[in-house]
Amino acid sequence: MPLPRLTMLVIPRDADATLVIPRLEVARVIERPDCFAIRGWEETEDPIAVVAELCGRPGVAAIGDQTWARHLVDLMGFLPAVQWRRSVELVGPLRARKDAAEIAALQAAAAAADRVARQLQGGEIPLIGRTENEVSEDLSRRLIAEGHSHVNFAIVAAGENAASPHHHASERVIRAGEVVLCDFGGTLSVAEGEPGYCSDMTRMIFTGEPPAEFRELYDVLFAAQATGVAAATVGTAAQDVDRATRKVIADAGYGEQFIHRTGHGIGLFEHEDPYIVEGNAVLLEPGHAFSIEPGIYVEGRWGARLEDIVVATDGGPVALNKADHNLVIVER
Amino acid sequence: MPLPRLTMLVIPRDADATLVIPRLEVARVIERPDCFAIRGWEETEDPIAVVAELCGRPGVAAIGDQTWARHLVDLMGFLPAVQWRRSVELVGPLRARKDAAEIAALQAAAAAADRVARQLQGGEIPLIGRTENEVSEDLSRRLIAEGHSHVNFAIVAAGENAASPHHHASERVIRAGEVVLCDFGGTLSVAEGEPGYCSDMTRMIFTGEPPAEFRELYDVLFAAQATGVAAATVGTAAQDVDRATRKVIADAGYGEQFIHRTGHGIGLFEHEDPYIVEGNAVLLEPGHAFSIEPGIYVEGRWGARLEDIVVATDGGPVALNKADHNLVIVER
Repeated sequence: MPLPRLTMLVIPRDADATLVIPRLEVARVIERPDCFAIRGWEETEDPIAVVAELCGRPGVAAIGDQTWARHLVDLMGFLPAVQWRRSVELVGPLRARKDAAEIAALQAAAAAADRVARQLQGGEIPLIGRTENEVSEDLSRRLIAEGHSHVNFAIVAAGENAASPHHHASERVIRAGEVVLCDFGGTLSVAEGEPGYCSDMTRMIFTGEPPAEFRELYDVLFAAQATGVAAATVGTAAQDVDRATRKVIADAGYGEQFIHRTGHGIGLFEHEDPYIVEGNAVLLEPGHAFSIEPGIYVEGRWGARLEDIVVATDGGPVALNKADHNLVIVER
Repeated sequence: MPLPRLTMLVIPRDADATLVIPRLEVARVIERPDCFAIRGWEETEDPIAVVAELCGRPGVAAIGDQTWARHLVDLMGFLPAVQWRRSVELVGPLRARKDAAEIAALQAAAAAADRVARQLQGGEIPLIGRTENEVSEDLSRRLIAEGHSHVNFAIVAAGENAASPHHHASERVIRAGEVVLCDFGGTLSVAEGEPGYCSDMTRMIFTGEPPAEFRELYDVLFAAQATGVAAATVGTAAQDVDRATRKVIADAGYGEQFIHRTGHGIGLFEHEDPYIVEGNAVLLEPGHAFSIEPGIYVEGRWGARLEDIVVATDGGPVALNKADHNLVIVER
């Protein structure tokens, strides 16, 4: 849980790394003296002063993307002459390229999410008559039961709510004969003490026989998602994967309804490099892991999204999620 | 869930406020045209450029504490002449002082956490033979069942793990005849669409008859916590509440084992102003809400903490948590 007490790894260019951490957290750190020293700070110390002293007088410093702005504002007070950069410039490309153990961890997380998706598609999770919130909590419990250490989100969007890509879940009751979008993911560690990697997948259910119009929309989405996965070969620019996916949807006349990028990288964080979006000319490398998740959203009516996590390999793109990609009918 | 796409409320000194938000999230915003305009940004736009343009050319700007540093670094590129401050300087004192509806919301969250604490103390939650993780998940499920929308943490620390204040939970099995520290909280909304307020409480269990030495330690802790609550009167400096609490523990010879501050403010965030810590001379005001949570930690052996959420009122301090403050024996 992110809390205000500062924990910060300080890596000077010409000195050893130091982990600055509240004294009351020190006991939880697995010591790695070959890798970093530990500097516990007391409740009445200013940890920013500790960090500033360890920094020396750098001309340029980089800071973590998700560090709270309060710490950067306070550091600027101690280090007014520094030019600040984002550390993702350095670590983003390293983090984006997963090694074999990381891919195995992503695979384990995807397999756990797949098991929940199959329970959903197999009708084990009742839908009709329950609220979106109830189904979301059910999905969450199952993500934990299948091995995730925590749930990052469990979106359940029925009917017109499926037209809002980031609708979460509400007290709206799911009825017979409507679309249900389920987009869920969590963090899973393959062993205790190992870092957790994220899952993230979307599958579509219809609570009854879908109208022809929705089937047609879904067929377009299915083709676009498959095209996106197939386009994600090593050496292809991220934006070209987005373009290939988008073209299928635009050619079918739904271009204005696909209002977000095609995907995001995934790993220790739910969203990280590489982003599959227009404007990102980064060439895919072996070990890049990312979502391919086109969507079509018809405001006030319905929407659909289909999402897998995909890894670029020398043998071609590999989708980690295997659960049925078709529109599945669940009549419970 | 915090994600990389920027959402930022821009409030110029001499112009109207604008909520800059990804276009795909716009549908989820409850519009308040009297309060702020909405500017949705497209996937291929740079939202930082949008924010910078709305800012004009300020000499000083304040930014939210929990805004990600990446956004501040990027903003500094667009607004190099700005002096950055923390917005908590402005909004912290306002947020710290809860109005009647906010206190009612904190009360509802505390009551829900209390119900879980009573289930724990009543032996409804089996402890002996289960892992800390299993009990943590059980507490989490019960926090949700009692009305929380999500769980922020559910610390379960048995035996020697209770000596680490922020130990979370592990695969360690709880045995008969040992201490179990449970510190849990979540976010609860009194009605859908209302903002969620946080709960946070700690209670201590012994799985059998506690040794005299631990009873003695607990008696000191109990007295310190009660002293801290009683000291939290309107007009008292936050640091004097810390001192009063600490003195009881120090006088009993455990001063070196109380290694953290006495408490933190609580509201929309789990930790916010006012912090009950040495060095904080802020005077408590009616409506200030905060934890009083002294602890005594004996490394390698055991530890204890006792925590309530307290509101300062003109009629004196009011502890929102009512569940039994004694060391409770659970032999299941």
